[in-house]
Amino acid sequence: MAYLNNITTPDDLRKIPAQNLPIVAKELRDFIIDIVSAKEGHLGASLGVVELTVALHYVFNTPFDKLIWDVGHQAYGHKILTGRSDVFETNRQLNGISGFPKREESIYDDFGTGHSSTSISAILGMAIASKLKGETLKQHIAVIGDASIASGMAFEGLNHAGVTDANVLIILNDNAIGIDPSVGALKQYLTNVKKGSAKQDNIFEALNFNYSGPIDGHNLPLLIEELNRLKTVKGPKFLHVITTKGKGLKKAEENQVTYHAPGKFNKVTGDLLPKVNGEGTPKYQDVFGLTIVELAKENKKIVGITPAMPTGSSLKIMMEEIPDRAFDVGIAEQHAVTLAAGMVAEGLVPFCNIYSTFLQRAYDQVIHDVALQNLPVIFCLDRAGLVGEDGATHHGVYDIAYLRCIPNLLIFAPMNEEELRNIMYTAQLGLQQPIAIRYPRGRGVTKNWKQPFTKIEIGKSLELKKGTEIVVLSVGHIGNMVAAVLNDLDSSKIGHVNMRFIKPLDVTKLLSIFNKYSTIVTIEDGCKIGGFGSAILEFANTNSFTNKVHILGIDDVFVQHGSVAQLHEINNIGANSFKIFIESLHANE
Amino acid sequence: MAYLNNITTPDDLRKIPAQNLPIVAKELRDFIIDIVSAKEGHLGASLGVVELTVALHYVFNTPFDKLIWDVGHQAYGHKILTGRSDVFETNRQLNGISGFPKREESIYDDFGTGHSSTSISAILGMAIASKLKGETLKQHIAVIGDASIASGMAFEGLNHAGVTDANVLIILNDNAIGIDPSVGALKQYLTNVKKGSAKQDNIFEALNFNYSGPIDGHNLPLLIEELNRLKTVKGPKFLHVITTKGKGLKKAEENQVTYHAPGKFNKVTGDLLPKVNGEGTPKYQDVFGLTIVELAKENKKIVGITPAMPTGSSLKIMMEEIPDRAFDVGIAEQHAVTLAAGMVAEGLVPFCNIYSTFLQRAYDQVIHDVALQNLPVIFCLDRAGLVGEDGATHHGVYDIAYLRCIPNLLIFAPMNEEELRNIMYTAQLGLQQPIAIRYPRGRGVTKNWKQPFTKIEIGKSLELKKGTEIVVLSVGHIGNMVAAVLNDLDSSKIGHVNMRFIKPLDVTKLLSIFNKYSTIVTIEDGCKIGGFGSAILEFANTNSFTNKVHILGIDDVFVQHGSVAQLHEINNIGANSFKIFIESLHANE
Repeated sequence: MAYLNNITTPDDLRKIPAQNLPIVAKELRDFIIDIVSAKEGHLGASLGVVELTVALHYVFNTPFDKLIWDVGHQAYGHKILTGRSDVFETNRQLNGISGFPKREESIYDDFGTGHSSTSISAILGMAIASKLKGETLKQHIAVIGDASIASGMAFEGLNHAGVTDANVLIILNDNAIGIDPSVGALKQYLTNVKKGSAKQDNIFEALNFNYSGPIDGHNLPLLIEELNRLKTVKGPKFLHVITTKGKGLKKAEENQVTYHAPGKFNKVTGDLLPKVNGEGTPKYQDVFGLTIVELAKENKKIVGITPAMPTGSSLKIMMEEIPDRAFDVGIAEQHAVTLAAGMVAEGLVPFCNIYSTFLQRAYDQVIHDVALQNLPVIFCLDRAGLVGEDGATHHGVYDIAYLRCIPNLLIFAPMNEEELRNIMYTAQLGLQQPIAIRYPRGRGVTKNWKQPFTKIEIGKSLELKKGTEIVVLSVGHIGNMVAAVLNDLDSSKIGHVNMRFIKPLDVTKLLSIFNKYSTIVTIEDGCKIGGFGSAILEFANTNSFTNKVHILGIDDVFVQHGSVAQLHEINNIGANSFKIFIESLHANE
Repeated sequence: MAYLNNITTPDDLRKIPAQNLPIVAKELRDFIIDIVSAKEGHLGASLGVVELTVALHYVFNTPFDKLIWDVGHQAYGHKILTGRSDVFETNRQLNGISGFPKREESIYDDFGTGHSSTSISAILGMAIASKLKGETLKQHIAVIGDASIASGMAFEGLNHAGVTDANVLIILNDNAIGIDPSVGALKQYLTNVKKGSAKQDNIFEALNFNYSGPIDGHNLPLLIEELNRLKTVKGPKFLHVITTKGKGLKKAEENQVTYHAPGKFNKVTGDLLPKVNGEGTPKYQDVFGLTIVELAKENKKIVGITPAMPTGSSLKIMMEEIPDRAFDVGIAEQHAVTLAAGMVAEGLVPFCNIYSTFLQRAYDQVIHDVALQNLPVIFCLDRAGLVGEDGATHHGVYDIAYLRCIPNLLIFAPMNEEELRNIMYTAQLGLQQPIAIRYPRGRGVTKNWKQPFTKIEIGKSLELKKGTEIVVLSVGHIGNMVAAVLNDLDSSKIGHVNMRFIKPLDVTKLLSIFNKYSTIVTIEDGCKIGGFGSAILEFANTNSFTNKVHILGIDDVFVQHGSVAQLHEINNIGANSFKIFIESLHANE
């Protein structure tokens, strides 16, 4: 790492003769592989833009010039070249650097990313600001992938930028894949451009951009030449760059989906290392994926929808087994939701699987197209609750609060695999209203999870343990932790109810609970404000109860990255902190 | 109305010889003008599609064939031809028909609309359903305007549809205007297509659509011929139709913005009739528009942003006076919010004005791009609370609930013009976090509203009336109603505090309130679940208060259309219902 060791800022990079930059790229790639193979993280995206990263920091005067990495999976090289090589091994760990660009982490991270397709809007805002401030020499660059640029928000940004004279350069990093392979008409079009068979001059020229490319994104001299040329072009510019995701690690190039975030691997061969805890209880994701196939084989009206997360959500299982009824619509959450609504209007039973954090992108569609018309779309909210290493941009902690205020919508949180299966079964039986089923990232608790289906009564809770003084009301998977702690504590004073439905609440049960127990504890893997605990307070108020209520959940701050277990403890909903809390409550009762 | 009087379903229309359809169109246009001139409503959009409406129902077999009107402002002709001519005079009134297509109103309204750009996704969902059900003959048509098709969600729909073989026909109703004139690169492109100077073959062909047009949307024989031809074309089709908004009423054609929804007018001359209550107190919208100009003249960092509502929001005033710092970005709420975030990152002070109901479209951007990075964007949430005749799709009643759970974000509701001015003044002084300022549609309470600016202390409430037993905590404009009722009641028992900030709550004041008053009443023009009242419950619980709390606000149902006053009464937050409530409480205290 003769060159890389001496680069602490891009200024150091810029002193290196251009002909030696391929060595820098080689070192950078090796460095990324070294660390990610041992520490895990997102691999393929950053390997694909090594040359582009070197070229951008070489040609442009960062951080004076502004540079935004859309999504940010591909920004590892950027982080390493901008003073973070020493701490790069703490990537995604508690108190370590973020896996995404983050403003508070570095002056080189001009705009935090994580969710896709924000970069064009943000860089345009910066370019307009520069113009108003008279900073005519400042350059503004956004790097965005072909999966991300097909999302509606990116189009809105292009549509606006094209009628400004703002000094923006949009670089399309076209590798034909997001996390999963890209889909959609724009992707086909881009493929045609690459083949030279596109019929029209250019879709981006139609939007008023000065278009150039496509060029080979692994050819450093060409990149540098082209970027230097574009520096002199005023107004909105578009550079189409072709790259290979996983470039430089053969296995990663050949298995791009697997090597998006491969876990630990052998840095020489690329072979994956066996995962710890790889056996045993299944992932909720696989329970979803296998169960929807099982149900869809019986109920021909069932369809599955994912916005660009077939692998992550495990809808891929259905896409392979029943391809004509499983749809990857690309990074298009808004479209996914209203598409599902249209399908219901014509008699289908869509399971629309969207990560909790990404459903924020389709909030209006849930209200306006689904709930207002009371169309029984079945939402599966994957990765609800704290998600761990992806951090603040990806935690799914607001869904209970933002969904609870929507009329007609049911909200259910399964405590385990069986409940997820059974609520999916129940929902497709002919539910007359939409439902959101929220479950976390990761594994459940039941090895023999595939039991015959049972219908779940809507709005019905499940009493897990009777008590006399204190009762814990839990929703979702976190109830397993509660049950384990209470089992250890072994006190007859403390009861436990798995509420299951956040909406509607089990009012009958709650009336008896509030009449019986003096102290109520609510716990949820979600924000406290407006959440499940708040719903219990509303119930208590409506019914004039004055029992003491303790609400456990996420405080009113953005939670950073770390392991799920660490983050649960920090937020006082982990096993240790809950144990201390409940013991103290028990002692004082 | 010789023809129109005999049309109760499109079947009746289809029996009329094609050469007589222009007479039907004339009658339909006259009918719309007759009723809307007297009863108010949206005029220009429906006048522009009279021929298209006749042609669609003539050629296609509605309701077997599916037809979606994007937004729905233009669907009056459709309503009249599908059995609702008799009740059309109840349009937008309480218990009357909706001003938008609505599934529960008619089997001809295949999908409810109101918010823009949903039609492509919805019709694609229906077309995919038809295909899976083997209904190969069914046609699926969406009519969408050029302003709406430029929104990101529409692009997501096109991008998906283009890679399906679904039998959809997207009709672009291109009149170069939404509510205000259309903007953006796509609009320029469409203009070039019309002029014949577009460089490339076609942007929609690039997305795999079978494109035809542009054709004259007022030429009935041509429309019918083309629609008949398209019936035989399989797969995704795109028809580009050119129309004139307000067609057939000279004044409406000449003043398209004014005649979008002109209020009452002379049906012969088109002259507007004087508005009742046109004088007196100003609209909150104009207070916003005039104040931002006043502030922006002093603070050169201030910019204004509106997604396609320059007239409605009154940002138009700034667009005219300081054009380089006021931006209409089109129907692109997502882009608007992240653009604002980018501007803050480079030192500007953006006021991002979005209707409460439309901010639902940018929910993720508020969380992920603004609040998470703690960028002090100033959101002005226009039309917060019940909006009246626009009804269920447009009420701004969820914002408190969906914003309250977001860390870093301040939420303020001005009670009057002065507070709106002063919070705008305060926000631009150098606030260190984002703020949402929510205010209703319509007029304030202060004639001499333009007073010198005063800084508002963040998180500070204002006690309006002292009491002894009961206190009413209000947020926003509704506090004026409370003050008036309490003034009439003239009881020393009842106090009133204008809380102003929903977040952060004035904790100091609340502690003294809960210590002093036995009974707390909260009132808000917003949903009860998760709203301001819920915040008060959370406060009470955290601080172990057991005072009786009564929460007044919108129940957990979608509120339909009617006048704001009517809807407030129905939801028990109008003057009459509040008076009855508070008198009863007072009597029992």
